[in-house]
Amino acid sequence: MTIPIAERMSRIGTETAFAVSLEASQLARQGKKIYPFHLGDLNILTLPVVMDAAVEAMKKGKTGYAPTAGIPELREALAKDVGAARKLNYAADNVSIQPGGKPTIGKFIMVAMNPGNQVLYPNPGYPIYESQIEFHGGVGVPYGYKEGRDGFILDLDAIRAGIRAGAKILIYNNYQNPTGASSPKEEMEELARLAVKSDLFVLADEAYFDIRYSGEPMSIASLPGMVERTVILYTFSKKFAMTGWRLGAAIGPVKFVEHISKINVNDESCSNHFVQYAALAGLQGSLEGPNSIIATLKERRDLLIEKLNAIPGIKCFKPEATFYLFPNVTGAMRRKGIQDVEEFRKLCLDEIGVSFCTRRHFGRPLPGETVQYVRFAYSGIEIPLIKEGMAKLAAFLA
Amino acid sequence: MTIPIAERMSRIGTETAFAVSLEASQLARQGKKIYPFHLGDLNILTLPVVMDAAVEAMKKGKTGYAPTAGIPELREALAKDVGAARKLNYAADNVSIQPGGKPTIGKFIMVAMNPGNQVLYPNPGYPIYESQIEFHGGVGVPYGYKEGRDGFILDLDAIRAGIRAGAKILIYNNYQNPTGASSPKEEMEELARLAVKSDLFVLADEAYFDIRYSGEPMSIASLPGMVERTVILYTFSKKFAMTGWRLGAAIGPVKFVEHISKINVNDESCSNHFVQYAALAGLQGSLEGPNSIIATLKERRDLLIEKLNAIPGIKCFKPEATFYLFPNVTGAMRRKGIQDVEEFRKLCLDEIGVSFCTRRHFGRPLPGETVQYVRFAYSGIEIPLIKEGMAKLAAFLA
Repeated sequence: MTIPIAERMSRIGTETAFAVSLEASQLARQGKKIYPFHLGDLNILTLPVVMDAAVEAMKKGKTGYAPTAGIPELREALAKDVGAARKLNYAADNVSIQPGGKPTIGKFIMVAMNPGNQVLYPNPGYPIYESQIEFHGGVGVPYGYKEGRDGFILDLDAIRAGIRAGAKILIYNNYQNPTGASSPKEEMEELARLAVKSDLFVLADEAYFDIRYSGEPMSIASLPGMVERTVILYTFSKKFAMTGWRLGAAIGPVKFVEHISKINVNDESCSNHFVQYAALAGLQGSLEGPNSIIATLKERRDLLIEKLNAIPGIKCFKPEATFYLFPNVTGAMRRKGIQDVEEFRKLCLDEIGVSFCTRRHFGRPLPGETVQYVRFAYSGIEIPLIKEGMAKLAAFLA
Repeated sequence: MTIPIAERMSRIGTETAFAVSLEASQLARQGKKIYPFHLGDLNILTLPVVMDAAVEAMKKGKTGYAPTAGIPELREALAKDVGAARKLNYAADNVSIQPGGKPTIGKFIMVAMNPGNQVLYPNPGYPIYESQIEFHGGVGVPYGYKEGRDGFILDLDAIRAGIRAGAKILIYNNYQNPTGASSPKEEMEELARLAVKSDLFVLADEAYFDIRYSGEPMSIASLPGMVERTVILYTFSKKFAMTGWRLGAAIGPVKFVEHISKINVNDESCSNHFVQYAALAGLQGSLEGPNSIIATLKERRDLLIEKLNAIPGIKCFKPEATFYLFPNVTGAMRRKGIQDVEEFRKLCLDEIGVSFCTRRHFGRPLPGETVQYVRFAYSGIEIPLIKEGMAKLAAFLA
């Protein structure tokens, strides 16, 4: 018997960060104390207003199929909410509800990209971009980030080179995983100018748009000439602590979004019906809940940055968004005599239980990369464990 | 601005039955009384044991990400349950939990089928098979059903011809939508022999396996040489009245199922976490709930068949599974002087509010088809409305 495995399966990637979770949980089962800085999940309960609405909708019988693109009330409320935060006029037709934020990535690529097309994507970045581009026969064109004065900045030269080489599609993740980067106004404006000038079509992954600790949010869709060429990836996961509920949306030009919904008809019919009412209650509820999540995360961020920067050989920017830090650990590795960042990660996990991901979990290293980075997430770890873990790391690297 | 729409989007299909729902609901809003025989959804509440478990799991914080292939408890319980009903030994590793039954179709095709490959699929049949085959670059090879003595029988000659022409993948939907067909033992054995002899790989869409009104269920996976070449599409939608919850599974050879889960990592991370505990409670609960759903459906079926067969020019088999009837309406159409089955449908909807789908909603007609069929679903309509609608239809066609 031959089990047929299609050729495209040799081109699909994965989230190698899951392997870190697995290693950490295996060590935990053996009795080792783990400091889980690898987790991109929230250890914060879903907002009560959301849970209550889910139960109510379920009991009212919102348990049959929903419309493929989502219940009209949610599409409309989300169009208003996302539009208001971005000073844009979206209507329900611009919104296709998805079973999570992630589904927008693959569907965007299937609708926009022909086999052989080049697609610009961030690297380091969420590994699913590269995987979906290659899975569906495209050519990924990575662009990196550089250390600026106050934080990571886009390598616009790499983007310009990609455009010159023929890329017409750009994936842009402002409020970025894993670097925590936020584009300064000028940077985003320059990127938008490039996009308009070169007629790029853009996926703006705004999964962390609402996880910000200061300032006003900015979306590239709001800039001149951009709304008609941008699809926003929206998720309910972070703002309402709904990661495991699986609800998000693709928001963009009606014609494009209709094609995304056509894939939904084929792939999953619709997203969970009563969960959509739960998300609606979240959107309509007070900001007290989301703000308390932000306050919790901010306290963790401030502590973690202070402790990391106190360790010789570690240098960490202070991102104003996401729940990730991306410290430069080149010096610390040198002090330990370690060349390989994955070896460094394994050592910290095995020796002191401090578990984190590295740059390698967010794309293949680009030519010429010599600086070493790791990713600390603080979404899944409490203050006392941050203190304890950082004390151990400081002692270990002393 | 050019909105890029990839070439593959010209090859994707849809469920045209949704258009019927839309027409019916527009008429209903205009005040017309509708008899909804078009709905493939259940108007039966989700079992209380399932709802209670969902609420409990949600409150316990099962709201973060779940493992991609599903929570281990559910994978194990489903492996046992599905295995026991089919006299097969499945383990948790054979199960990949999906956000619905439908997701297994597209993922099966992406894993098994290379562009250009021929895939046998039923026509009339669920339109998503054909759509996914063509979307991902394959060549659909349709096979039909014929009227037997007691019900529809597979056109095995068409399947043999497809195999001779090079098809190596077969989609088989026993307990079939829309015909309601159940393969007699000999027919399924002959199909299995063909599959083994010709080294076919099989998707067994068993969405209606548990919606049966008599007899023992049969799965092609249970026949000699088949378990290693069959992937079962399982859904929680029908048995537990969970259509809008979106939970199902792909069950088959470990190696193949692992590839399916790899697509899940990329497409949706995981299925809703607490919904998996709800489904687990359904599996572990008493059979009283599922049996009461069957009893409700059986009463509707018996009444509807009696009423349909009492109308001159309509001839309807009595399927022992699914919640669909597929009456031959050739005579009734002739009496009305109508040639086109879609015209017949529109007339019944517009004139008397009796809404149903036709053969056309389940694939392109095959060469030589002259007999006309429509599909009556009784999952979404109560006894009094069945009586009233059938009385109107009888009068209209008299």
